[in-house]
Amino acid sequence: MASADYFRPEIAAMSGYVPGEQPKLDNLVKLNTNENPYPTSPRVAEVLRDFDWRRLRRYPDPLANDLRDRIAAHFAVKRENVIVGNGSDDLLTMLFRAFTSPELPLAMLDPSYSLYPELAAMQGARVIKLPLQGADFALPENLLELAAPANLLIITRPNAPTGTHFPLASVEKICRNFDGIVAIDEAYADFAPDNCVGLAATLPNVVVLRTFSKSYSLAGLRLGYAIADSGVISGLMKLKDSYNVDALAQAIGAAAFDDQENLRANCQAVISERERVREILLSRGFAVPGSGANFLFASPPDGDAKRRFESLRRQAVIVRYFPGEVTGKYLRITIGTPKENDRLLGALEE
Amino acid sequence: MASADYFRPEIAAMSGYVPGEQPKLDNLVKLNTNENPYPTSPRVAEVLRDFDWRRLRRYPDPLANDLRDRIAAHFAVKRENVIVGNGSDDLLTMLFRAFTSPELPLAMLDPSYSLYPELAAMQGARVIKLPLQGADFALPENLLELAAPANLLIITRPNAPTGTHFPLASVEKICRNFDGIVAIDEAYADFAPDNCVGLAATLPNVVVLRTFSKSYSLAGLRLGYAIADSGVISGLMKLKDSYNVDALAQAIGAAAFDDQENLRANCQAVISERERVREILLSRGFAVPGSGANFLFASPPDGDAKRRFESLRRQAVIVRYFPGEVTGKYLRITIGTPKENDRLLGALEE
Repeated sequence: MASADYFRPEIAAMSGYVPGEQPKLDNLVKLNTNENPYPTSPRVAEVLRDFDWRRLRRYPDPLANDLRDRIAAHFAVKRENVIVGNGSDDLLTMLFRAFTSPELPLAMLDPSYSLYPELAAMQGARVIKLPLQGADFALPENLLELAAPANLLIITRPNAPTGTHFPLASVEKICRNFDGIVAIDEAYADFAPDNCVGLAATLPNVVVLRTFSKSYSLAGLRLGYAIADSGVISGLMKLKDSYNVDALAQAIGAAAFDDQENLRANCQAVISERERVREILLSRGFAVPGSGANFLFASPPDGDAKRRFESLRRQAVIVRYFPGEVTGKYLRITIGTPKENDRLLGALEE
Repeated sequence: MASADYFRPEIAAMSGYVPGEQPKLDNLVKLNTNENPYPTSPRVAEVLRDFDWRRLRRYPDPLANDLRDRIAAHFAVKRENVIVGNGSDDLLTMLFRAFTSPELPLAMLDPSYSLYPELAAMQGARVIKLPLQGADFALPENLLELAAPANLLIITRPNAPTGTHFPLASVEKICRNFDGIVAIDEAYADFAPDNCVGLAATLPNVVVLRTFSKSYSLAGLRLGYAIADSGVISGLMKLKDSYNVDALAQAIGAAAFDDQENLRANCQAVISERERVREILLSRGFAVPGSGANFLFASPPDGDAKRRFESLRRQAVIVRYFPGEVTGKYLRITIGTPKENDRLLGALEE
């Protein structure tokens, strides 16, 4: 037999998730993977400088308790309500392995993060798509009815790629009435006016996921965390790799997390620019739903987003384009520095 | 429902893998988790010093191509024959998700690495145990017959916790005749006289797993790699987290991998000490099978390993003890520095 024949049929049938491209071009303006345009806390430089490289011969703390304690203290929860992962992708993998299977479907928003269906496919789990409504990509009225057969419901808030920040009261009502686990993927919550940590701290079926990749400007490090009921966390712990977060990431993550002032300043700068860019695009006739994230989902007046995507690329401005009936009319534009955003706005006029 | 009720039944039933303890004691001699007593390459210090912390705001190369190319060149294979992981645990997780399921059993040596049954349990896969034979823990004659129903066969070579380095010709014969994937876990192969990379480079069903944790003294970093047929590697790629190895780990791993001289010197020092300690234990009447790893599996003359384990602990010498009918008669002792090994040998006389 060829080696490919030994794969589980679910895996053999998958095409695999394709991450946003990381092109190497001169004078590139890279606004395609929602990275933060500003650097992380300068305290990270100190960690790198002071870290004893000889210490790497030892395993890291498998439970990352120091980092968990800092996160728990900040959110006024307990250590046993927190788990950390090698990026929030690692935590998503644990969630899918814990709560989905051929018998236990996933429910997710549509459009939303295109990794979720891939993770469901690995588990052989059916995917129930919950179509967002109208030009504002609002939650469907009958969401609970549609999602009812699922065991895991992911609400991405703010949503990607639409940027939509659904009303907190609607999300709370869903959490209280859904018979299953609600994972609220808050990768972008630091750019939004509120978040769902309070729900995770009080409702036993709610998991909030966070990442250091966006607001903490640490995409290169791979670090994320989840907050939930201790029963959920202890179950997820069984599924994590024994030493899933390395010693450097634990130390760097702690330093970055402690510098909330740097976090707030960077997020505020991004939010200001997001609103400035949105106003300009609206004035040019683009459809741009309100965003709680560090990106905008923008549709040009003629709906021909693909042409704009290609034209931008020729001008070395890279944004993200998702083919599809709905998403194909939009560009997902990461907010960069004012200078980068001006390059984008200029290039969009070509 | 309580949150625990939403877990897949396979996960709810698991107790979870318990890593070796990381105690904090004064004057501790820590010989329980097979860490290297010597530091990694000093080139790693340079990487930490020179790394631009601002760069961490960008995602790492999702494919880790620079590191894969270095590994491929060293072993005279191609980039598409190499995948890297967040520790070899990450690669084991991919293998289990790719090749085991309720319909596709695992076959493994017994005793061997106690993580494998946990990974099988997560997949709902049956575990076929292949009992090692006699005082030397040799491969059973009927291994192929016993393993036949499995889709994935893991041969740990050198084996943990026994240290056994099975004859290469026997392993090759198994690989050529097993109808399924053979994963050869070579976590300890740098301490052994030969390895199976040649089999992975030529046979389409053979995967060799390596880690930077032991021989490269980088347990704290989390980095491993696998070498296999390109069809196997491309299938595993679908299962990995998009950015599973962070930017620092890619840079540090490349520097450590390039310093083969430091690797050889550290491994040779460990091997010399391993043989010295083994001779002394044999002269005291311990049963100590030959080891190709950085540890010894040693049974005291009266077989009461548990008493020795506890006595060593009281003297702040920590080794690993695995309860069980066979393993319960042995201590697994990591080889430390000459001074640490002398502390162990002295403490064993109490």
